[in-house]
Amino acid sequence: MEQETIKPRILKGFRDSLPPQEIPKRRLIQTLVNTFESFGFVPIDTPALEYTEVLLGKGGGETDKQIYRFEDNGGRDVALRFDLTVPFARYMAQHRSELYQPFKRYHIDKVWRGENTQKGRYREFTQCDFDLVGADSPSADFEILMLMNRALETLGTGDFRIKVSHRGLFNRLLRRLQMEDRSAEILRTVDKLGKIGRDKTAALLEEICTGSAGGAAENAGAILDFIQAGGNWEETLARMEELAGPDETDQTAAAKRLRDIASMAQTVGISDRLILDPTITRGLDYYTGVVFESFLTDLPAIGSVCSGGRYNSLAGLYSKEDIPGVGASVGLDRLLAALSELGRMESSGSPTELLIINMDENLQGHYHYLADQLRRDGCRCEVYPEPKKMGPQFKLAEKKTIPAALICGTREYQEGTVTLKNLQTRQSWENIPPSEVRKKLAALLKET
Amino acid sequence: MEQETIKPRILKGFRDSLPPQEIPKRRLIQTLVNTFESFGFVPIDTPALEYTEVLLGKGGGETDKQIYRFEDNGGRDVALRFDLTVPFARYMAQHRSELYQPFKRYHIDKVWRGENTQKGRYREFTQCDFDLVGADSPSADFEILMLMNRALETLGTGDFRIKVSHRGLFNRLLRRLQMEDRSAEILRTVDKLGKIGRDKTAALLEEICTGSAGGAAENAGAILDFIQAGGNWEETLARMEELAGPDETDQTAAAKRLRDIASMAQTVGISDRLILDPTITRGLDYYTGVVFESFLTDLPAIGSVCSGGRYNSLAGLYSKEDIPGVGASVGLDRLLAALSELGRMESSGSPTELLIINMDENLQGHYHYLADQLRRDGCRCEVYPEPKKMGPQFKLAEKKTIPAALICGTREYQEGTVTLKNLQTRQSWENIPPSEVRKKLAALLKET
Repeated sequence: MEQETIKPRILKGFRDSLPPQEIPKRRLIQTLVNTFESFGFVPIDTPALEYTEVLLGKGGGETDKQIYRFEDNGGRDVALRFDLTVPFARYMAQHRSELYQPFKRYHIDKVWRGENTQKGRYREFTQCDFDLVGADSPSADFEILMLMNRALETLGTGDFRIKVSHRGLFNRLLRRLQMEDRSAEILRTVDKLGKIGRDKTAALLEEICTGSAGGAAENAGAILDFIQAGGNWEETLARMEELAGPDETDQTAAAKRLRDIASMAQTVGISDRLILDPTITRGLDYYTGVVFESFLTDLPAIGSVCSGGRYNSLAGLYSKEDIPGVGASVGLDRLLAALSELGRMESSGSPTELLIINMDENLQGHYHYLADQLRRDGCRCEVYPEPKKMGPQFKLAEKKTIPAALICGTREYQEGTVTLKNLQTRQSWENIPPSEVRKKLAALLKET
Repeated sequence: MEQETIKPRILKGFRDSLPPQEIPKRRLIQTLVNTFESFGFVPIDTPALEYTEVLLGKGGGETDKQIYRFEDNGGRDVALRFDLTVPFARYMAQHRSELYQPFKRYHIDKVWRGENTQKGRYREFTQCDFDLVGADSPSADFEILMLMNRALETLGTGDFRIKVSHRGLFNRLLRRLQMEDRSAEILRTVDKLGKIGRDKTAALLEEICTGSAGGAAENAGAILDFIQAGGNWEETLARMEELAGPDETDQTAAAKRLRDIASMAQTVGISDRLILDPTITRGLDYYTGVVFESFLTDLPAIGSVCSGGRYNSLAGLYSKEDIPGVGASVGLDRLLAALSELGRMESSGSPTELLIINMDENLQGHYHYLADQLRRDGCRCEVYPEPKKMGPQFKLAEKKTIPAALICGTREYQEGTVTLKNLQTRQSWENIPPSEVRKKLAALLKET
């Protein structure tokens, strides 16, 4: 009796990655890793599964419903991590004595959220975070901006802008309006400005400000004025300070920080790319200092491709001794979509440069010998795995977008030569010594 | 009232990876990826979480108790993958029409098993698999052996041997002894020979053979004779054939396959590294053809660092149309332990080559400018993130094993120069133009 087969399928909200998706993703990640390491950031890793209490805190809260939480075989209440920030906070608290500070790490790995699947939203996705912790200085903030700038330059996304603001000034404004208690809602609303437009934002703000000391319309107006401050960096900053009003708690540290950053940007020569934009607040309550988002000039609608900011209470949940930090997260999926849409993604085919045609059963060993020699010479090549007619072999080359083939039959073998074929142009170089293949192939790859 | 903190801790059997562990692991993986790609293997990805039925089959079985299985928020019976082979089988069955064959993929990612934690056993670990599917040929088998050979060469593990055998001959022997029905137990026992020794293996085999047609002692003796066949490749093979006896089903295909592999190894020049060893059976029932394990000559006790074999029923659970394949799995943790024990692991410190000392608040921008220029020149460098005394800055360099420092105070800044300092020898090059740092640093790094 034949065994019944199981339907091959995956869970809703999850994805298989086929080579045409996975190859460019791996390339993008490698480019980011090289950039992170050129700035002295080092990799770390944490478990995918943790105690639920560690991930959610004792309360739980909104994220609660979204996470994959269960009881393990030992009866522990565990959950899959839903971001890389919470595990990093736990990691810093737990390993503080083994690590040095300032500590700069990057972490690229999967996270899971059981949220409802919408277009472009998945229940499993890769996060890519980098943070500098253990220092609260303009230079630390600027380092993250420099890294974002360098990463986007290296990825070849075309022109881009990094928009910067500071929570300190926004908080000063809210204190002046006596609306600090509604800070979280206001931040979330302002953050939506780009999506929902000015009018809807105004209406929502007025709703939130209802019953406030200064009056709903007045306070909503003041917030709108603040986030619409414009001009060059210094003009915008002056207007933001004016609207935020004097504040003893802040002692103008926020404004000074923004001026220091502008000055460094000037010295390094990236002032044109940095824009002070008070609409940038980042939805989360978590940030305490500078906040930033970055946008591709040719694809503004795709949203921020790399965002972050300063938080000064990373480890507070796990340790009485807190750690300040600044960091950002790269939107890998967005960047991949952008590079693809802009036609700036390298070919997503196989990295193989050369297919060695397998045409004679008695020459199998010789084909592997040629491949071995070529690889030692830096060539990425493969032997078709069984003797077959040319048709299926050329078809594989086409499927994998391999640009060239090496042909060696009995005659060539006896003469100690091979034939190299450009699979796009069909041009051939016949009877060349194997030692010349690498050079000819390099010339051929340059042409195509 | 102060908030109560949550104890930062991870689950038993799970690990955090600190930079001194993670940096060499990432390097090892990158070297493997480069080798895989030089052979034309491409990356794929599959979800960490799948339907339990897909992962376990309809029956369940022994693995059942070991997996992380739970009901998700949508009431689905789901589980974390416990290896990369089952998801790959499902993937091939599901995407057959979108993929080409022969298909060569690698997959490096985490898997989870809830098994009891012993020394060196973890509940979360990284698997690294590579497979060639859609071809059943000597050349395909040999490609995997070539890749194992090249990977171990490139990793610099020192001398090694790849031990090869073939399930076909072993099955012929079991058929002759009329013991095919006890195949799984016998395979598991023979697989333990290296660990438990000859006498214990003999006793166990006799126990398994109790009540068999040929007699327990006789059959156990025949199996022991078979796995002790020795000599060079051809001598061993001749003895294995003799003991396995004639067999119409096999029609000597197994022996021919082993001879073809030996012939290719001869042509390529790796015969010395390949050993035909009938004790290699691989515990799993899953393999149907060649099987292989690899051992480091300087560290045989660590066990096989890369193992695999041919299976001719990859997708049978999910599809009526099956796919033959051959592949292997790299033991990343073992290899890391081996490289460390052999002192052949590169320094596990930061990849940073140069620390730019932060000594003057007014020169922050200039430090970032210097760093940017150096990075564009290919130098991995970092700016200490805040102005501080030299002490803590040199201490960070020491912790991160950064070999050199760049010093630029007001005088140097005004003169347009910098000072480069070798942090091992304390030697300095004073007042050099920034454009010369890269060259001087390269010379310095070569020395150390």
